[in-house]
Amino acid sequence: MSKILRVNMTDLTAKFESVPEKYNLLGGRALTSSITCDEVPPTCHPLGPSNKLTFSTGIVTGTNAPTSGRISVGAKAPLTGTIKEANSGGMAPQKLARLGIKAIIVEGQPKKPGKFWLLKVDKDGAKLLPADSFTGKGLYQTYPLLFKEFGDKVAIIGIGTAGERLMSSAGICINDPENRPARYAGRGGLGAVMGSKGLKAIILDDAGGPGVTIANKELFDIGRKKLVAALQKNDLTKPGGALNTYGTAVLINVINEAGALPTRNFREGRFEGASSISGETLNENCKTRGGAGMTGHGCSPGCIIKCSNVYPNPDGTELVSVQEYESIWAFGANCGIDSLEVTGELIHMCNDFGVDTIEAGVTIGVAMEAGLADFGDSKKTIELMNEIGQGTPLGHILGNGAAVTARTFGVVRCPTVKGQAMPAYEPRAIKGIGIIYATTTMGADHTAGYTIAPEILGVSDDIDQFKTDKAALARHFQNVTAYILDSSGHCLFIAFAILDDPSGLEGVVEECNGVLGTKWTLDDMVKLGSDIVKKERAFNTAAGFTPADDRLPEFMSYEKLPPHNVTFDVPDEELDKVHHA
Amino acid sequence: MSKILRVNMTDLTAKFESVPEKYNLLGGRALTSSITCDEVPPTCHPLGPSNKLTFSTGIVTGTNAPTSGRISVGAKAPLTGTIKEANSGGMAPQKLARLGIKAIIVEGQPKKPGKFWLLKVDKDGAKLLPADSFTGKGLYQTYPLLFKEFGDKVAIIGIGTAGERLMSSAGICINDPENRPARYAGRGGLGAVMGSKGLKAIILDDAGGPGVTIANKELFDIGRKKLVAALQKNDLTKPGGALNTYGTAVLINVINEAGALPTRNFREGRFEGASSISGETLNENCKTRGGAGMTGHGCSPGCIIKCSNVYPNPDGTELVSVQEYESIWAFGANCGIDSLEVTGELIHMCNDFGVDTIEAGVTIGVAMEAGLADFGDSKKTIELMNEIGQGTPLGHILGNGAAVTARTFGVVRCPTVKGQAMPAYEPRAIKGIGIIYATTTMGADHTAGYTIAPEILGVSDDIDQFKTDKAALARHFQNVTAYILDSSGHCLFIAFAILDDPSGLEGVVEECNGVLGTKWTLDDMVKLGSDIVKKERAFNTAAGFTPADDRLPEFMSYEKLPPHNVTFDVPDEELDKVHHA
Repeated sequence: MSKILRVNMTDLTAKFESVPEKYNLLGGRALTSSITCDEVPPTCHPLGPSNKLTFSTGIVTGTNAPTSGRISVGAKAPLTGTIKEANSGGMAPQKLARLGIKAIIVEGQPKKPGKFWLLKVDKDGAKLLPADSFTGKGLYQTYPLLFKEFGDKVAIIGIGTAGERLMSSAGICINDPENRPARYAGRGGLGAVMGSKGLKAIILDDAGGPGVTIANKELFDIGRKKLVAALQKNDLTKPGGALNTYGTAVLINVINEAGALPTRNFREGRFEGASSISGETLNENCKTRGGAGMTGHGCSPGCIIKCSNVYPNPDGTELVSVQEYESIWAFGANCGIDSLEVTGELIHMCNDFGVDTIEAGVTIGVAMEAGLADFGDSKKTIELMNEIGQGTPLGHILGNGAAVTARTFGVVRCPTVKGQAMPAYEPRAIKGIGIIYATTTMGADHTAGYTIAPEILGVSDDIDQFKTDKAALARHFQNVTAYILDSSGHCLFIAFAILDDPSGLEGVVEECNGVLGTKWTLDDMVKLGSDIVKKERAFNTAAGFTPADDRLPEFMSYEKLPPHNVTFDVPDEELDKVHHA
Repeated sequence: MSKILRVNMTDLTAKFESVPEKYNLLGGRALTSSITCDEVPPTCHPLGPSNKLTFSTGIVTGTNAPTSGRISVGAKAPLTGTIKEANSGGMAPQKLARLGIKAIIVEGQPKKPGKFWLLKVDKDGAKLLPADSFTGKGLYQTYPLLFKEFGDKVAIIGIGTAGERLMSSAGICINDPENRPARYAGRGGLGAVMGSKGLKAIILDDAGGPGVTIANKELFDIGRKKLVAALQKNDLTKPGGALNTYGTAVLINVINEAGALPTRNFREGRFEGASSISGETLNENCKTRGGAGMTGHGCSPGCIIKCSNVYPNPDGTELVSVQEYESIWAFGANCGIDSLEVTGELIHMCNDFGVDTIEAGVTIGVAMEAGLADFGDSKKTIELMNEIGQGTPLGHILGNGAAVTARTFGVVRCPTVKGQAMPAYEPRAIKGIGIIYATTTMGADHTAGYTIAPEILGVSDDIDQFKTDKAALARHFQNVTAYILDSSGHCLFIAFAILDDPSGLEGVVEECNGVLGTKWTLDDMVKLGSDIVKKERAFNTAAGFTPADDRLPEFMSYEKLPPHNVTFDVPDEELDKVHHA
């Protein structure tokens, strides 16, 4: 029988509660967003005492469903002021699920700011411990100290100095299978919310935990096998497939070819140095340099796709895990930098400080726009990033993300929506993802509805990237994502397989029904997703958001993007149709 | 026949246009707001090419109506994202009016940022001249250079380095009668809009100008005399009255006594050092130190009230003009500083850099909250202000105002509404002004509806400061202010006289009817004010503002303010009634 763990940082208590009936069939994003909607006043200050930070694992997380080790983190976000769900893999999700904990709700805030605590959770209960000796350091120092203290079988959900300093690009870090501080619920500044609660880390020890109850084991297994089959068949997701071989960076050449790889702070759509930072080059370097380098690395146990990697230095020693497409792009093409060695070093810095790589890279691009560095200047970029780690005034600007940096330096060309930096797809060149950026409940976020699949990759459909009438597409993708992916506990990347294989999709539904004992159809789950999106929208509306916020930055309407020389020409009416069909 | 001057900064043209009929009866705020509503897309970037900056003098400005030398400046504001009107006295308003120019509209933007221009306007026309030799310096250097170039009879409307650097606390400066850079259309960051247009200064030479046409001279004179009589009778506004003798700083002791003088970043409502920074002390120092010091200084010709001052150093030399109530408070009580020498030095810095004193002082209070200085530390405060002048990263943070500073350093106790710093009246202790802050179209702004008059000063009525049912009061004050004060061209401070003397109020109506040849009643003018407020609200709504933005910061709802130990307890419903009666 799973429980909710409620942690009050004002009086430093951690108490278990039974799960209210209304939450019984929820997991992941559906649960974090529901709790945020039920318990957080939409107009509250994101870093004040009224905000709450919720952690919830997916419905099937903790079972042997493939590629399902995801945890969702929710709160009102300091970066955007909207409701926020950021999810991550790593070692924590399955451990939390196996402890029989459906959600952790962190509320209140210490009366004295600057004091930090650890939350230790194991089968016997939960308690708060002083974190004094684990604060103020980089995570590559902190995580080993924590593992030394609590043993290397625990999982850690923690924040770096950026989160301690309440910077709104701070993410929430989760250790990978080798206990690196490498996986992130990165977006929206949820690390700053955790910092504002005075919570440095959650230590999860699942030894002897009850595990996940499966209501209908037979049905679950049927579903699981269908999904495994679909994943193993698909060219992108199968062992030895594109993601497994090249990592997510396989997209660099593809998106560059489409003229949609944002380059030099979204001034251009094609980067002359793309091949140097491509998945193909990454794979080649991992292979030829020997030593620590590898592609096909899994970020959490039970993943079939294994799209992660460990990137080696030229001498074969480890530089960083992981060079993801978004991270490579953010510091690479977006900053005019064409070196995986440099992007690797910058990603390492992000992991060390605890900041979101997308936000950080886009912020550096905006800082370059402001004249703080030249595009392509690796040395200066590293210096700028170091300011974040040092917590200087400039570091505070950059650490608060692209929109704050643009505002502080008067930069108009600022590629954000609702204050959140755009990911690695140019919305002027791929209209559907632009509609997604504009209309998600989370600010610019490709994971809320990955229309790149049909618009560029030919997955599920083959839709002209320049067509603008994509409100229905954007709506459907957001609704499907909200439950079938973000709430089931599966990674977004199963989408490639299940979009192209109805049996795989069926498998996910059956897995969920198996765990919960429900009889949902696919349509039921899409409807549940739609309900979650509606609930999140209602939160945002109450927080003061309107259709005027569901827009891309104005400069994209009058600056033509090379090489296709296109503006973002999706009519406002089309954008407004997404949520008001 | 008056004209509109349209200045296009993209192609560097300045052309006169006839006034569209719909603008014929408008002036001041009514005209700037109407032009903004008609020509500026509400969702545009405030510093981008689509925003426009409009200057318009009041209906009676340029005549001999008393205390009517005001100019209104309008645009979409970078500080708030709302529509904005900021108005000022000084030497420019009457000169612009006498040149027969109803409004100047500045639009477009140079393709290359960083290049600045002067707009020279005289009876023969208008032209743009390079401003290279007048940029990058403090205004105490720049203004003398400009007067040297153009003669000391011109008036200058200019920006300092803060405006050049696009900082959103940058105001627009106008010289006073002794040609000091001392009067400001301060609020909302309009100086940054002017900076974004590449316009360093407007030089107005009214020699030989046509003057203001008065349709019904007789009626105008009747009205003018009534207003003069009312101003000369009222204890606050008469020669030798409170404002004339003590300046606006007469309020320091009064508001402190009411427990509503925000102290140490709005932590308390009473300042133990109030008497040291009071109007009484200011007057005493001006009298006893001899030399340059004076109260009863007029900020523009034809003012009867003359509430300005020149504050002397101990040796009688000039420290600064002007030590206003809001400025003294912002750097004084609000920063825990109890010295007029220090507030004077800080105001001088604001005038030199071209920033709004209210925004700057509240920003320093927030910076103190963030730990950048201790409350009361004058030396460190001056150092922090110098960062703005130097344009360092920290200076860019502070120069962008209190909300950006709070966001950058994670400060929750941030006294702003819609991103604009609150002025010198604690809304928890004076509920009506809190309703005004929450519901004006401009962000926290006491000049949009000065309910302090009845709530504290016993002017027009005597209303308990703690009563919360003041939606109707707040609505009425906003509507009256919008036309009768901000559009007529009269200074806000005539309000004390006309609120207590129906004949004075009648006089203002007759002055306007006299100039325009209209037959407005008082009710007509209140209705016109209401129409302007509605128009401004519609702009804000289209820009994405909702009732959720018509709120005070959350901390004021749970932190009790000493000495009365009150929270801001006006129900949201009461706030929403202001504009939806």
